[in-house]
Amino acid sequence: MIDENYQAKLEELDLEKYTITEYLFESTINPEKAVSDLCQEQATAQHRRSFVKEDTRPKYGAKVVSLDVLEKDADPKFVFEFTPKKKVSVCKAKIAQPWVNFGAKIPNMISALVGEGIFYVDGINSISVENIEFPKSFLKHFKGPQFGVEGIRKKLQVKERPLICSVVKPNIGLTPEQFAEQAFKGLTGGLDMVKDDEMIADTEYSPLKKRLELVMEKLYKAQDKTGEKKAFLSNITTEVSQLEELYDAVAEYKGDAFALLSTMPVGLSACRWILDKGKFPVVAHFPFIAPFTRHPYFGMSYKLITKMQRMVGYDAIIMPAFGSRMFTSHNELRKNIDSCFEENSLKKTLPAPGGGIKPEFIPQMYKECKTKDFLIITGRGVYKHPMGPEAGAKSFRQAIDAIEKGKTLEEYAETHKELKKALEWFKEHQTHTAPVP
Amino acid sequence: MIDENYQAKLEELDLEKYTITEYLFESTINPEKAVSDLCQEQATAQHRRSFVKEDTRPKYGAKVVSLDVLEKDADPKFVFEFTPKKKVSVCKAKIAQPWVNFGAKIPNMISALVGEGIFYVDGINSISVENIEFPKSFLKHFKGPQFGVEGIRKKLQVKERPLICSVVKPNIGLTPEQFAEQAFKGLTGGLDMVKDDEMIADTEYSPLKKRLELVMEKLYKAQDKTGEKKAFLSNITTEVSQLEELYDAVAEYKGDAFALLSTMPVGLSACRWILDKGKFPVVAHFPFIAPFTRHPYFGMSYKLITKMQRMVGYDAIIMPAFGSRMFTSHNELRKNIDSCFEENSLKKTLPAPGGGIKPEFIPQMYKECKTKDFLIITGRGVYKHPMGPEAGAKSFRQAIDAIEKGKTLEEYAETHKELKKALEWFKEHQTHTAPVP
Repeated sequence: MIDENYQAKLEELDLEKYTITEYLFESTINPEKAVSDLCQEQATAQHRRSFVKEDTRPKYGAKVVSLDVLEKDADPKFVFEFTPKKKVSVCKAKIAQPWVNFGAKIPNMISALVGEGIFYVDGINSISVENIEFPKSFLKHFKGPQFGVEGIRKKLQVKERPLICSVVKPNIGLTPEQFAEQAFKGLTGGLDMVKDDEMIADTEYSPLKKRLELVMEKLYKAQDKTGEKKAFLSNITTEVSQLEELYDAVAEYKGDAFALLSTMPVGLSACRWILDKGKFPVVAHFPFIAPFTRHPYFGMSYKLITKMQRMVGYDAIIMPAFGSRMFTSHNELRKNIDSCFEENSLKKTLPAPGGGIKPEFIPQMYKECKTKDFLIITGRGVYKHPMGPEAGAKSFRQAIDAIEKGKTLEEYAETHKELKKALEWFKEHQTHTAPVP
Repeated sequence: MIDENYQAKLEELDLEKYTITEYLFESTINPEKAVSDLCQEQATAQHRRSFVKEDTRPKYGAKVVSLDVLEKDADPKFVFEFTPKKKVSVCKAKIAQPWVNFGAKIPNMISALVGEGIFYVDGINSISVENIEFPKSFLKHFKGPQFGVEGIRKKLQVKERPLICSVVKPNIGLTPEQFAEQAFKGLTGGLDMVKDDEMIADTEYSPLKKRLELVMEKLYKAQDKTGEKKAFLSNITTEVSQLEELYDAVAEYKGDAFALLSTMPVGLSACRWILDKGKFPVVAHFPFIAPFTRHPYFGMSYKLITKMQRMVGYDAIIMPAFGSRMFTSHNELRKNIDSCFEENSLKKTLPAPGGGIKPEFIPQMYKECKTKDFLIITGRGVYKHPMGPEAGAKSFRQAIDAIEKGKTLEEYAETHKELKKALEWFKEHQTHTAPVP
């Protein structure tokens, strides 16, 4: 029996007052005892004072609203030094917690729902936070993306095809002048955007303001030359104490320059603070997400961190593309993309699956994304093209043209030499396995 | 062979220019190829422009300085959906990276060394960042703890025994008045400090400023009554946009009030920003650290996050205590404590192992910590004592007195009823297994 103090029927709750968190866990004890303990650890760990007749649980307690035992007598799937030599029950539970306990604040919400308590429950070998449903009353405190899919499309004046962005390579060690020149080549070749690598931000050898200035000069030239709108994602990732300064440097270009920001290294809450200013689109990068999302039975789902990134206001979110190269299943990528588009009070954010993307993978990306609202993130696909970066960029546009015209890449390559070369050369020169297992 | 572009002898490097990162990893391919790829992914992913004779690697490249194969033909220890059905080599490698690539900035350092790249290397099944050695030239940019062990001892005027802090319980749902009354009981009973639970911060039903005001009133009374100095750790964890406001509220007590801050939910960099103000001691709490430190072969070592918390300026660091209750081995706790005391340019920070601590465990804590410089964090040990919180606090002081006088707890309990009761009662009413396996 689930402890009666820690359970509720969904229909009995005032749902606007609760977050509903879905946990996947492996229990070595009775699952009903385990979920009761989970409720206790995430909220009312002690519910009364000594010698006082009271109970904080009716008002402040977490409550189990559903429990499903998916497998019984299973071998543990998350195995580490403290995994007991016992069989486990694999369970899914939904737990409601009154959000008055933490408020519409990312750090406090994380401390409660994904915090310390749930990872230290006796008898729970592993636990993953799969999803959190936030009620309207909670979500309305979040501005979310201020540009989003539509805002980015409007700025770039591209309505009906996926957008293409390449990391400028070499990613490290170029002077700002060399970097701007490389950016220009990609942009005139046909890229919609170029970006800094997540490894280069405001460095001694390439200060952000200088790089930005030179790239923007070239970008305006590329716009004139091609008649297309372009953007540069400048990596403003830095200490929180310096974040506003870099943000403002980008803002000087009045929305013509975008920014890149590494969510977890900077912290979700600092991202929320800076993104709330809403002066230009900002794109999320994914360093330090793998460490807590990789194992499906421990930590947090990737989908949930995608959802939180949308909540704090990212207009596009770079995420690992499908396949063994990025240790990401099709199903996981699907959920991440869905999370970008989920209907709620927030604008939709543009999913940007990246990692080893070459033109040959674009047909599959159309299929995976089930929409044209996605951002292709490449790097070597453009900057290692054997005919140079302009040709590399062209080969991506050609791949998209092929699909939009209903042709196979191979057909289209017959009359488009950059695409032809890309298909041939990258097949022979795979530095990584293909993204499709 | 390790790729010659990605290796160096330690003695050939200007060590002030490099961080040295120690990785533990499982490789399904030749370990020498794997470490070469690790270097490539964390720095110079593409090292030259098309048609240009250049190489960014000599100046900006990461370099392997040591590689040890610890096990060959082993079964993978980190098993997840993409783990290949192959034997692995378990390896340790030290990799030097020129820190000009990222600067003395936490977000950029994390993006490079613990970032995206290292978790997406073909042929590396799992990887854990065990340690990072920062040269003096890097570390000098960090203020570190501004009070630390000595500063906290000076404020509390306690020279030669461990300090005792209890979470005020019930942790959630008390009015500020009720909370302050509970705090008073613990403090007059003999606690050095009381603290907010990590679950309660600035909430509607208990606004931080109100709670702080009432607790501080009671705290000054408790000081008068006991003739001892006391402190309250007020949980200022909140959105980064509101952090300074809460910090300043605590600062109004001119160093008599301390604060508690949840590092990862707020973000290391925002913590660095606020802690740099240095107006009063701040103590770190550990929500959201388990998700990326739990598995010894994946993510980051707990020791490293302890080290980073000291760098950003925490004066004391709450960490999981030893034992199966906290999924923490003696060895891991030992390394965490060592990290608080490691000799470098920063002040030492006070380790605070917590989780289910009762008086009976104090002798072992002395043994584990090998020093009196530690902070005991309890909660139920004080606030569930069957004779009430004053007695609970007394029982902890008595346990310390016993040890300081060279007696066993059992001997001392014969003449000290609060300790006697604690030893008996918590033995019968274990809500969790004891912290020692």
